[in-house]
Amino acid sequence: MDKLNLDDGFARFSEHWRPKVAARLNGQEVRLVKIRGEFPWHSHAEAEEMFLCWKGRFRMEFRDRTVELSPGELIVVPRGVEHRPAADEEAEILLFEPAGTVNTGDFVDERYTAPLGVDI
Amino acid sequence: MDKLNLDDGFARFSEHWRPKVAARLNGQEVRLVKIRGEFPWHSHAEAEEMFLCWKGRFRMEFRDRTVELSPGELIVVPRGVEHRPAADEEAEILLFEPAGTVNTGDFVDERYTAPLGVDI
Repeated sequence: MDKLNLDDGFARFSEHWRPKVAARLNGQEVRLVKIRGEFPWHSHAEAEEMFLCWKGRFRMEFRDRTVELSPGELIVVPRGVEHRPAADEEAEILLFEPAGTVNTGDFVDERYTAPLGVDI
Repeated sequence: MDKLNLDDGFARFSEHWRPKVAARLNGQEVRLVKIRGEFPWHSHAEAEEMFLCWKGRFRMEFRDRTVELSPGELIVVPRGVEHRPAADEEAEILLFEPAGTVNTGDFVDERYTAPLGVDI
């Protein structure tokens, strides 16, 4: 029941594309992730994912369009929909998704697939 | 798959203690709520609740202590734990919780118990 300051949480790590668990509740996780560059295209057959832009800017690319996100803007990616987050400069993002969700979804990649359950 | 700007979302309503649904995913809801004053003491037998302070300041009172929250700080209230959010000045809060969660939990109050599922 301690509080977490999100800026302090983001300050505890510097890697990109490696989500860290900030909170667990109701089988879901609040994850913090820093991104830069382009992630692989992927989808999640079972999970919807929420992305809330915390710092910087990023874009959520879908096969048919791109949504640009600035701080304080969120988007929910439906299950089964191919997407690719990308950022030209580093961005900090808060994720909300089921605890077992693999970051690369159905696509397993030596470089980008991150371990689950790593606390900040 | 449209994005939502949280400041725009909060600007769409002015009532206190009336959570509005900003996003739905995986049986959970992201809710926006404005608060001022003291809420009734209550607990949720089945749900954990996350509170993320967006604007202003508020305190989460527990029976044995109080946690003060400023913008960018979050806290998870475990199921079954009595709590009372309170704010001297208006605060804006983002909530994550299961879709069916009643804001007053086990305590039903004519003034404070809010309808479920109301979109912003």
